[in-house]
This record gives sequence, structure tokens and C-alpha cells, in this order.
Amino acid sequence: MIKAGIIGATGYAGAELVRLLTNHSKVEIEFLTSRSFTGQKISEVYPALAGIVDLKCEEIDIKQQAKRVDIVFTALPHGVSMSVVPELIKAGVKVIDLSGDYRYSSQKIYEDWYQQKHESSELIDKAVYGLPELNKEEIKEAGLVANPGCYPTSATLALAPVVEEGLVDSQSIIIDAKSGVTGAGRKPSRVTHFSEVAESFKAYKVGEHRHTSEIEQNLAGLSAKEVILSFTPHLVPMKRGILSTIYADLTQKVNSKELIELYQKFYSQEPFARIRQEEKMPEVKEVTGSNYCDLGIKLDKRTGRLIIISVIDNLIKGASGQAIQNLNLMSDLDEKEGLDFAGIIP
Amino acid sequence: MIKAGIIGATGYAGAELVRLLTNHSKVEIEFLTSRSFTGQKISEVYPALAGIVDLKCEEIDIKQQAKRVDIVFTALPHGVSMSVVPELIKAGVKVIDLSGDYRYSSQKIYEDWYQQKHESSELIDKAVYGLPELNKEEIKEAGLVANPGCYPTSATLALAPVVEEGLVDSQSIIIDAKSGVTGAGRKPSRVTHFSEVAESFKAYKVGEHRHTSEIEQNLAGLSAKEVILSFTPHLVPMKRGILSTIYADLTQKVNSKELIELYQKFYSQEPFARIRQEEKMPEVKEVTGSNYCDLGIKLDKRTGRLIIISVIDNLIKGASGQAIQNLNLMSDLDEKEGLDFAGIIP
Amino acid sequence: MIKAGIIGATGYAGAELVRLLTNHSKVEIEFLTSRSFTGQKISEVYPALAGIVDLKCEEIDIKQQAKRVDIVFTALPHGVSMSVVPELIKAGVKVIDLSGDYRYSSQKIYEDWYQQKHESSELIDKAVYGLPELNKEEIKEAGLVANPGCYPTSATLALAPVVEEGLVDSQSIIIDAKSGVTGAGRKPSRVTHFSEVAESFKAYKVGEHRHTSEIEQNLAGLSAKEVILSFTPHLVPMKRGILSTIYADLTQKVNSKELIELYQKFYSQEPFARIRQEEKMPEVKEVTGSNYCDLGIKLDKRTGRLIIISVIDNLIKGASGQAIQNLNLMSDLDEKEGLDFAGIIP
Amino acid sequence: MIKAGIIGATGYAGAELVRLLTNHSKVEIEFLTSRSFTGQKISEVYPALAGIVDLKCEEIDIKQQAKRVDIVFTALPHGVSMSVVPELIKAGVKVIDLSGDYRYSSQKIYEDWYQQKHESSELIDKAVYGLPELNKEEIKEAGLVANPGCYPTSATLALAPVVEEGLVDSQSIIIDAKSGVTGAGRKPSRVTHFSEVAESFKAYKVGEHRHTSEIEQNLAGLSAKEVILSFTPHLVPMKRGILSTIYADLTQKVNSKELIELYQKFYSQEPFARIRQEEKMPEVKEVTGSNYCDLGIKLDKRTGRLIIISVIDNLIKGASGQAIQNLNLMSDLDEKEGLDFAGIIP
Repeated sequence: MIKAGIIGATGYAGAELVRLLTNHSKVEIEFLTSRSFTGQKISEVYPALAGIVDLKCEEIDIKQQAKRVDIVFTALPHGVSMSVVPELIKAGVKVIDLSGDYRYSSQKIYEDWYQQKHESSELIDKAVYGLPELNKEEIKEAGLVANPGCYPTSATLALAPVVEEGLVDSQSIIIDAKSGVTGAGRKPSRVTHFSEVAESFKAYKVGEHRHTSEIEQNLAGLSAKEVILSFTPHLVPMKRGILSTIYADLTQKVNSKELIELYQKFYSQEPFARIRQEEKMPEVKEVTGSNYCDLGIKLDKRTGRLIIISVIDNLIKGASGQAIQNLNLMSDLDEKEGLDFAGIIP
Repeated sequence: MIKAGIIGATGYAGAELVRLLTNHSKVEIEFLTSRSFTGQKISEVYPALAGIVDLKCEEIDIKQQAKRVDIVFTALPHGVSMSVVPELIKAGVKVIDLSGDYRYSSQKIYEDWYQQKHESSELIDKAVYGLPELNKEEIKEAGLVANPGCYPTSATLALAPVVEEGLVDSQSIIIDAKSGVTGAGRKPSRVTHFSEVAESFKAYKVGEHRHTSEIEQNLAGLSAKEVILSFTPHLVPMKRGILSTIYADLTQKVNSKELIELYQKFYSQEPFARIRQEEKMPEVKEVTGSNYCDLGIKLDKRTGRLIIISVIDNLIKGASGQAIQNLNLMSDLDEKEGLDFAGIIP
Repeated sequence: MIKAGIIGATGYAGAELVRLLTNHSKVEIEFLTSRSFTGQKISEVYPALAGIVDLKCEEIDIKQQAKRVDIVFTALPHGVSMSVVPELIKAGVKVIDLSGDYRYSSQKIYEDWYQQKHESSELIDKAVYGLPELNKEEIKEAGLVANPGCYPTSATLALAPVVEEGLVDSQSIIIDAKSGVTGAGRKPSRVTHFSEVAESFKAYKVGEHRHTSEIEQNLAGLSAKEVILSFTPHLVPMKRGILSTIYADLTQKVNSKELIELYQKFYSQEPFARIRQEEKMPEVKEVTGSNYCDLGIKLDKRTGRLIIISVIDNLIKGASGQAIQNLNLMSDLDEKEGLDFAGIIP
Repeated sequence: MIKAGIIGATGYAGAELVRLLTNHSKVEIEFLTSRSFTGQKISEVYPALAGIVDLKCEEIDIKQQAKRVDIVFTALPHGVSMSVVPELIKAGVKVIDLSGDYRYSSQKIYEDWYQQKHESSELIDKAVYGLPELNKEEIKEAGLVANPGCYPTSATLALAPVVEEGLVDSQSIIIDAKSGVTGAGRKPSRVTHFSEVAESFKAYKVGEHRHTSEIEQNLAGLSAKEVILSFTPHLVPMKRGILSTIYADLTQKVNSKELIELYQKFYSQEPFARIRQEEKMPEVKEVTGSNYCDLGIKLDKRTGRLIIISVIDNLIKGASGQAIQNLNLMSDLDEKEGLDFAGIIP
């Protein structure tokens, strides 16, 4: 059994790791930490776990905890992760970090978009960007994996096949993304107050969301060209799920059938990417509760634009499911282990 | 024009007062106060009001503000109201208080259920309980009206006709009530966090909610007997509305038709109580956005129990609409003035 | 008093007309028709109206009904309107048609996108497109007004100022629109089944929605150039409201301040368009229940794109409120009559 | 491997069986039937299943299908089940029927409440009521299991310990139950139309719901007394889950601690019943997506009433999960096989 620890276990991503790992036959949760709920059982914080996981939340104590495990998930806010990850790496445990702290190959871009100094820049080069569909071999060898952001996972998987082939104009990309409210975390605020969210819909951080830079980095890596794109996130009155509607100008003549074949081929070895048939578009509910990314492709003949619809569950493929997929790869397990279930219906 | 001030204008009940008064042809809002948003326009806090009400939120300054108005609504938390109401009364303005502070004729019962000392007990006898359907004449003469709680409005209107007639066993009453989330106010908390409320349902304060005592006081007043009842509030994943399902044992033989006639007669002069025909039950959406209380009556022959379904919009008939109804009565206006509109469909 | 009839009164747009007209001091509803609920009171179909409007729904009988009224609203499905409108016009009553049947100046474009023959093409030239912010003088003189579609209202108001000025590349426009479920009407279907909509989000009719052609016609009229654009509608798990996120490439240098001033000037005489200040974006809830269209403007310096956020209530400014605004103009009343209220909060 | 067939696989209970059985290591789905989707893959009807279960939906053909399987789930409407179950039993396969057709020991009570003749009354005596917590040994030996209704599961598990002990007055029981919308099935109707359900709440079939009789039968079986109770179902704007609030008069002095111990003892061998500690009440979200029934106990000292809160996922413990629990018992497997997972968080 692989022994795992979860630092930051009571946020939504942390709790989702706990929940998903209870289905994983090769991993045992050895410890959980939580600042807000130290000393309480995780099943007191989330009674859904009662009788299934009744571990007590510990305080962070890297030195002592590192000895007990093979791998640690850090599910901490951006900027906080980099205060614990270096010590974990030094102690010889593998780390999968769910924050943005190690996702960038350029320290400057990180510091510009996250508005803070990077305090463990020595690890930037060692960290592997944990998007298994693009980076599988590096992840297998990694000691530190930077788990991708939720929006970047959705957008990058949608665009990778055509960007790599040079089929779209890299300056024409527009990503109009819509997320459920769990993306904003568990901390109460006016923005996530039920009476302010229900029966409404809004865009936020228009032209300014950090994930813009993460998506641009991913696509530039595939195209070997600089990519400057528009990314607009929106808040949907639902709990889970992201749908990205993506627009890009085609650079050459291609028909729908060819495009769909390109996608099918690109993802033919990937268990968690599903391509819809022509004229079928995926909906959020078709991935809610699962680790899939479903993609629909539409060639708009009137405008010559490619329109891609991409859906994921933000807490699974967009966070904790993908982290377990990375654990599987880092641990030489079947990539699907513990993740091989359908989403919830309805 | 009647000049009105609103103290605590940026909470949901305060904002609803502002919104509703913009439809009132005889009232002008003279000032608004808000602790959290002093100096900001109400239309910055609630952009829905832009171009309609652009008053700035002031700090509370009773001495100066009392001079500018005929009447003041105090939409403050329980316990805070009683720190401003006495000064307003002394300054000679009429007051409609939306908190629980002046709803009780017994200081002891207030102090037991609200767990705090009453600091202006001299006003208890002067305050009139502002349920127009039961108390119209007293309200017309009142200088201080205690606006009823939302649950008590729903439950009292549902039970008044049969309790007054002695048709139900006063010890058998069970009120199973369900409220939308605005009942919990605008302050963010885990309990009202979108991701914790959506797709769930819960009971809270089972056997312990303060409104129990307010309902008991109302019914005891009608029956001249002590009433001890069960009241269980629940949280519904919707913004507005209360539905109360009420059970009581009948004390004598009566049929459905007679019961409905009793209700129709009891409320025949009341513009905001609507009785459904036999076998029809009201739903929350039929009153959302309006000042109505709709009632459905069911005689369960198998058990000999009376079942009453009562619906209101908690922010209107359960708070701000009722407060305006009280203002109309206190100001010798048509009781329906500014309130004579249908709820939103759908 | 103006006497009005509503044909198709029990669909959502029809019921919204009924509800809103109860607030209108110069209009009296003379008759309502409904195929599905003939003989029933509108207040039996919608108990929210009980005691406010208790008219019975009649069968359609144009000859007899036309004599009783000055103006008729036809709230019928596309294709059905054109079977009753000609007779109404012939009988000398004014008509405001809420369907798509008379919105197009080109019969061919209508027939291409609506996939049916136009059966009263003689009225196409007489019909005036009822978007008051662009067409006020023609509406005042019109005998037949074609009330705009909900999405086209939202998108056209958002783009008119910059399209008219030639500030955006007319081939670069992308409209990513999101609507509440009432846009799909009252007829039950799997697509609007609660358990299929809640906690999900989807795009539909990608690249193929009829409103594409209506928006293109509107913008072409403003720019005197052909406009081919991308329009993608989405379904949001909420009842009311549309938010359109609109992207367009700027054709010349301009800054945020200048853009906002352009919008403010363009709409300076318009009571129902509100422009947000720099860096503020409107949310759906800020217009729900009102006749406003609120607009936010963002200049994305990184990409040189203009991003516009536009919100309306689809049943009010997107349908029945706008129809009443048209009635006011056609009847020489204050444009705001009966519509001068704030949306619901929260 | 046990080979199973599902008749009626595309309704919500049928689809939930498919989804849950993909997690079951000892069962293989051999065939699915669907009248509405014959010839289509289940993964076309529910794309969430794509790549996981791609079986085609067959027409019903009992003779041929019975040969291929060990056990069949019938997830058909009431009244339809009894037209296929007898032939399945005759063919020697075990049957778990999710309809109400075989739940009653009294043919008369069934026919009174379901308003139809029972057409295979010879099986009534052979059928075992499939509530494992009460009936485990009979289920193990059964050839035909009648899977309980969703509301009866929730209410019976809540009341069984105190009814069996005679601690509550059997004529005083009131069950105020609230269900998510999936309880109404997948067929669209006005009652389940998104725009009619969202932001509303209603009671339905007050005093008349069929499940009343099923609960009464269950409790009478435990107490050896006739039980006549009030049962009021309500519709909550959420997809899954039932919460029942249950009131009953105590017949003897007992304290909270003793009550909770009674429940803990009663369910000590039951893996899917969880008792909350004193003063803690379960919420729907704590069981959504799981097979648990969670119970909270409150002794209301003021009224001498016992209040019980019971929550289940109506599609799992209230239908398909319980059916699989029954399959496990009938097949001599671990009762928890394939069901041993936590619900979804959040």
C-alpha cells in the first residue's frame, strides 16, 4: 500500500481527495491536516464520511509527518504551498501540489500574475506540470508535480490537438468559461452567499484572471509560438463543473470529420478524454462526479471559426481526480486506478 | 408626503423596504443608514436600484435624523434595535421595528428565549404587535409597532381562525416550517454558503427556535389558553418564501366546506389573505414577490387532523411588506397602498 | 384608458404581460385568450394573480375581439402569429407581436432561418422593429410592431454604440450568451426538466440559433456593412435573465474612458439602459424583475479586444416589458409608464 | 460473476442501477431494456456512461432474456411490473422489483391505494419486503423481493426502534417528508418543469399519498397494532434526497441519551444506518450519492414529543442502492459489496 498524507484536508479539494481515495485500492490515507479543524475528525467536519474515514485532523508537522508517508498532497492556497513543499521534498517524499505555486516555468510570469514573490524558486525547474494527457512521461519520473488549475485543464485539453497541429491562429483564441461555485472554495463570502448566487449569473475578473497565463503557457509549449488569448470566467449557480466555450480562427481548410478524427487520434490512448460525435455537444452533467474531460467540436462554416465545448468536474479532473491520476503515474499504477467510475446521474 | 427613514438599509429587509417604497405614492425616503456601507450610495451596494434610489447611506445620528422624518423603520438585529428605538420615540417619531425586541408582552419570555436583558422595558407596554389581520385598530393608534417575525406571520395567520373558535386542541399543534435562505440575512456564513445549501435540505434549531415563543404568545392571545407547540424550521435551497405545514387535532366534528367558510369569513375584510378552494394547496411561488399570505385547508378524515398549508414571501409579508402595511395603517392611508401588486411569475 | 387584449396569455411572456399591465395606470386588459386553458380564469392558471386579475381565458375570435380593444399583444409561437396578425391589422387595431414573424425586412432570411414560408409577407414592410432605443420615432407611428427577440435585445443594445461608430471590426464579433430556462417557454420537455437542468450547464444550437440572423440584421442596419458573427446560446440553471459576453476587435485606438463616454452619450436619453462605471460589470440579478439593460465595458489591453457584458431580464426587457414600452410609445404615453420599478433584490 | 438484467433501464432508478453496478465487482450487467430507447446504447441516452457501459437497450423478451441471467431488476411503473414479474419467476430467475406491486401483504390495501386490480396475486405471499435492516433473513431466502418505496424507507427506518419498543403512541405519528425532484421520475411534466420548481416549494397529495399505506403496514408489523398516521410529502428544488421530519408522542419517560442508545443498539449490525450524536441532526447532503440512512433524535421536553430527522438519497437507499443491497443478500455476498462508498461532497 502507498501511504499518503493530505495537507489542507478540509477545503473542498482536500475533502475530495479524501473521498476519492476511499475508493482507491492501492492507497491508504495516513494523515490529514487542517488548520481550522485541528483535533476534530474529518467525519465531524463532513458527516458524509462517518464510518468510512474517521481520522483526526492534525496540525502541520512536516518533519514528523514526512516520515510516515510515501507521498503528500498539498491542497493549500496559493502562496502557502511554497512554505511547506520545500521541506517535504527535502524529507524525500513525493509531492503533488494543488496550488498555482509550481505551475510556471517562468518565475517572472508567476510573480506578475500572482502578485507575490516566489519563495522556493529552486524547485521551479524540478516541478513537472501534471496534465497527464500532455506530460505523461515526465510525471512518471517526477518528485514534485504541480497539479493544473481547473480552468487551464478544461481549456488546454480542448485546444491541444489543434494548437499542436497549427490549425488555429494562436492570436485569435477566446475562452469563455463558466464554473460552478465550488471553484471559489469553502470559505464563506458575499460572492458565494446562496442568496447572491442563486438565480443569477456573472462574469468576474474580466481580462485579468490568473489562469489566463497558465493557459497561455500551456499552449505556447505546444505551438512554439507566443500565445496571447482572451479568457473570461463566469460563475454559474451550480456547485460543480466547468464548461468552456472556445473560439478560434482556423488557419487552413479542414472539415468537421477531419477535426473530430484529429481529436480522437490525439486522445486515443487517454482514458479520461472523450470526444463527442459530430453535432453532439457535451453538457456539464455528463462529467459531474467523474474524472472525464468531454469535448465537442463544431466547425462554424458561416464564420470560418472553430468552436470547441469542453466540460470537466472542477473538483475531480480539475483538481483532486487529476491529482490521483498523477499519483497513479508517479507510483507506476494503472492510471485509472480509483478513478474508473461514471459520474452521477442525474 | 410622508417622510420616512430606514435604519439598517443594506440588509435584505432594509433593501426590500427601499425597493418597495419606490412603488409607494405617498411615502418619500428621506434617509438611509448603514454601518457597513456608510458614505456609499445604496445603488452602489445594490446596482438594481441605480437611477431609482441613489441616496447615500448615512451613519446613525438619531437626534439629527429624527427631525427630518415622520416615521422610521428600524431593520436591525435583535438586541440592537432597543439601543436606538427609545431615542426615536422620545424624539416624537413613529417607529416600526423589524426586530424581535418589542414583540413580547412578557419581558421574561423575551429574556428567556433571546438570552439577553431587555434594555427598554418601559416601551414593552406601548409597543403594538403589528399583524394587521389581527390587530388593525391598535396599529392605527400606535407610535411603536413591533413588526412580526416571518415564521410567526405564516403560522399565526394559518391558525388564528380555528384557534379563536376553539376548533383545535391547543396542545396538539405542530408547525413544520420551511424557509428560503434570505431568512438568514445577508451576512455570509458556512450555513448560507452556496455550495453548502444547494442540493441539500436541513432542519435547524429543532425544538429551540425563538419564533416558537412568538407563535405561542399569538395563539394564547386568541384562545385565552396557554399554548405549547412544536415548531421545526427547515432551510430550503431557494432565496425567498416560507411554507408552513401545520397539524392540529380537531376538537369537534366539522367538515371541509365549513372550515373553508370559516377562513373566508375570518379574512373577508383582509386584502392580503387568500383562501384556496377545497383540495387546492398553495405553493411558495404563488406569493413570491408579493404581500399575500395564501392558505390551504385539508381535513384528513383518516386521522381526524386538520392540516393547513400557509405560504408567504418572508421578505415581504414576513418583513418589509408587512412593515409598509403597518405604515399605511399608522398613517391613515389605504392599507394596500404601495403593496397592491402580484408576485413574480414564474 | 387604453383597452388591450392579449392573445396567448398563459405562456410565460403572456402571463408577464398580464402581471406587468396590472401596474400600468393607463391600460386596461379587456380580454385574454388561451388555447390550453379556455374557460378557466387566468388566476386559476396562475394563482399568484388571484384577486388581482380574474379574467377568464377566451378562445381566439378576432372579429369579435378586435372591436373591444385599441391594441393587441400576440404572444404566440413563431409561425402561428402570422395566422392572426393580418386579420387584426385589417380590423384596425394596433398590434405588438412577440414572435419572430415580423422582425425581418428580408422575407428570404426569415424563411431560411425559420424554415417555413412567410404567409403574410405584405405586412413585412409595414412592421416596425420594436427596439425603442434604436427605433423610437418609427415605433411611435407604427400600427404593427415586431417585438425583438430576447438574445437580440441583449446583444444589439450592447453593440449598437460601437458598431454605429465603426469602432469594431464587423467580422470579428462573437456573442457568447447565457439564458435562464424561462426562455424555453412553459411547455414541459426533457431539456427543461428540473432534474436535467439543475446542477448542469450546456450550450445549444451552436452556430445555428435563429437569433443569429436577427442580430446580424440589426447590426448591419447600424453599420451599413454586412455582418457575419458567431452567436452561441447557453442554458443556465436559473429561471430568468440573459447575460451576453461579447468580444470584438477594435479598429482604432481608444481608451476605456472614451468608450464608456460613448455608451453614456449614446444612451443618454434612454431610461432603460444603464452603463456601469469603469471596471464594474453587471450581473444578471441586477436586472431580474426589471425592464433595464445594464452594460459593462472592458477594454482588454493585452489582446486589443473590446469585451462587453450585457444583462437583461429575458421576460421583461427581452419580451413583455419591452412590448409595454412599445405600447407606451405607440400610444403617446411616457415611455416608462408601468415599467418604472426596480428589479427584485435579492 | 452474477449475471443481471435490468428491465426499464433508462428511467432514473434504472440508470442508477446501471451506474452503481459498474462499481460492483461480483455482478455483470447482461442486458438492459428500454421501451423509449430500444436499439440505442445506454451511453447515448446517458453520455456520462460512455466508455463504461455501452450496452444497447433491448426490447423486453422475457423468455429469451431470462435464460441469460441469474437475477433481474424490474424498474417499471406500478401496474406494469406485475405484467412481467410472473413470467420471470416462472422462468426461474430471481427478481427484485422496484415498483409498489409486491410490497403489500394485503391485496385489498394495494388495490384501494393504487386504484387497480392486482393481476398476479398468487405472488403476493411469496414476495419478501426488501428492507434489509428489518427483514434480512427472509431476503436471503427470497426469489422475489419487493424493493421498498423511497419515503417508506426513510420513515420506517426512523421509527422502527421506538415503534417496536412501544415507546410512541401509534396514533400520534406525523411524518412531514420532503423529497428532491428525481422522485417524480424522468418523464417531463409541468410539475417538474425547471421554471415551475426552482425557487418554489410545495406540498402535494396531502393526506392521500400511497406511501402512507406502505409505512402503516411496516409499522403495524413492528408494533402488532394498527397504525393510522399522517404523511405529507413535499417537493424540494433539488435533484436527490429525502428528509423526513417525524413527530410522535412518547408513551413513557425516557431521556435523550437512552433514546440514542436504543437506536444505536437497534442498528448496531447494520452497515447503512448511522445515528447522530445528541443535538446533531443530519442534512440531506450528508447522504447524497450514498446508500446511508442517517438519523437524528430529539426529545422535545416542552411538548413531550419525540422528533426524528431521517435522511436518505431517494435514488440509492430509496431505490437502486437498496436493490443492490438486496441482491447482495439474495446472492450470499457481503451486504456492502458495491455500495461501500461515501456520498458526494459537497
